[in-house]
Amino acid sequence: MPRQVTAFSNSTVKRLRSLRDKKARRLEGMFLAEGLRIIAEARDSGRLAEIIAFSPEGAKHPLAAEIIAATEAAGGEAIETTADILSKMSGKDNPQMLLGAYRQPSTSLDQIDRASSPLWIAAQALRDPGNIGTILRTGDAVGAGGLILIDDCADPFSVEAVRASMGALFTQQIATCRWPEFLNWLRSGPGQLVGTSLKASKDYLEADYQQPCFLLIGNEQQGLPAEYEAECDLLVKIPMAGRADSLNAAVAAAVMAFQVRASWR
Amino acid sequence: MPRQVTAFSNSTVKRLRSLRDKKARRLEGMFLAEGLRIIAEARDSGRLAEIIAFSPEGAKHPLAAEIIAATEAAGGEAIETTADILSKMSGKDNPQMLLGAYRQPSTSLDQIDRASSPLWIAAQALRDPGNIGTILRTGDAVGAGGLILIDDCADPFSVEAVRASMGALFTQQIATCRWPEFLNWLRSGPGQLVGTSLKASKDYLEADYQQPCFLLIGNEQQGLPAEYEAECDLLVKIPMAGRADSLNAAVAAAVMAFQVRASWR
Repeated sequence: MPRQVTAFSNSTVKRLRSLRDKKARRLEGMFLAEGLRIIAEARDSGRLAEIIAFSPEGAKHPLAAEIIAATEAAGGEAIETTADILSKMSGKDNPQMLLGAYRQPSTSLDQIDRASSPLWIAAQALRDPGNIGTILRTGDAVGAGGLILIDDCADPFSVEAVRASMGALFTQQIATCRWPEFLNWLRSGPGQLVGTSLKASKDYLEADYQQPCFLLIGNEQQGLPAEYEAECDLLVKIPMAGRADSLNAAVAAAVMAFQVRASWR
Repeated sequence: MPRQVTAFSNSTVKRLRSLRDKKARRLEGMFLAEGLRIIAEARDSGRLAEIIAFSPEGAKHPLAAEIIAATEAAGGEAIETTADILSKMSGKDNPQMLLGAYRQPSTSLDQIDRASSPLWIAAQALRDPGNIGTILRTGDAVGAGGLILIDDCADPFSVEAVRASMGALFTQQIATCRWPEFLNWLRSGPGQLVGTSLKASKDYLEADYQQPCFLLIGNEQQGLPAEYEAECDLLVKIPMAGRADSLNAAVAAAVMAFQVRASWR
């Protein structure tokens, strides 16, 4: 049976709330996901929360009730609480009526099985958690295997990234590593490393993409470092028609990923 | 000569700060843009601020100094102020050293010259200002003429939208209207209205896009209303490979816009 919790000072409430903070997430190895849509996506991908919190209205939804029961049956903790407390935990004025705390999966490069997908997205020093979540969502839609985060990226398990991923965080493989480690791993098997660069002469529509293809997306401000570009097997450019010389990083990832997929049809 | 302003209570400081608020923006017909990159983009597009505020460090940059001088020469007001006050005005802890207040251009549909571009993006009930800014940036990159905002959308002149547009707000035409007004205007001249829909049978890679093409993007949560889809000349789907059934709105706009452009080569 779910426990009733109505005090902000309750230790589980405090613990869930602390997961909005990166340090606490890393320490606990946990993260938060909010809302029935994302939590149902997680369940459909075989993932249940370790702790699930909900408002009385939240529990009325049949799907929510089913997931709450499944969470408890699997040994998880379920707490019924107030909208106020959910709002404090999610940091939103208008909170979702369901919130789950999940164990972070391993983000070791070793667990990436490159043979499981023809397309992978790699991002270097991506700073915006919303971009990371959006790229995960795009990766799921385009049939990529996952996202490899290189160097200092925003936390893919942050509330903003999870939100923007719309559940793709549970379906995409995620790895984090430094550049030398990535290169070592990449070159230990088949894989074409594709970067986008304004200096490239090859049009992205005319390039020959090989499977497995690793799309490398650079930092929002600086793009890819020159020495990283130099390691790419293929550099392409997306011709710019306007005054601007760049796209939003998540948009560039999507335009490239969908074009790579289109080229294989 | 720039005026020195160091008091939060200064009326120009208060006025600039008020422009973070939608009501004040509408009342004054003005909006804020921050940072040398966007403000230089504006100047290159023939737009100078009515008021420009900067920190002493900001004025040291030769390009910034040039734009400040040009702003004053054109009758604008220049104020030198502190990083603290700039931070208050922009709502950022780490403010840009340059901030401009610009007059909003007309957003009447009448000023859209459809013959000036083969591609236009229209968005319906888009609620996220970041998505609006990102779509403007994409529109600039892909060579679209502008963005038509239909029904209740977020304010394209909000600080978040301007920021995400990376200056494309100054290069893309922007119109706001209700759906019946848009349809009337659209049907008063040539134009193919293209919607994306999960129910469509036509693959977006196999469709025949006609110029001028109007891409219609739906609300982040609901997509396009059925009766809006029914008015489209062409409905296409972007096949989804994963568990998710949708893309981020700005990503969907980009994937479609770049594919339309690619189909015309």
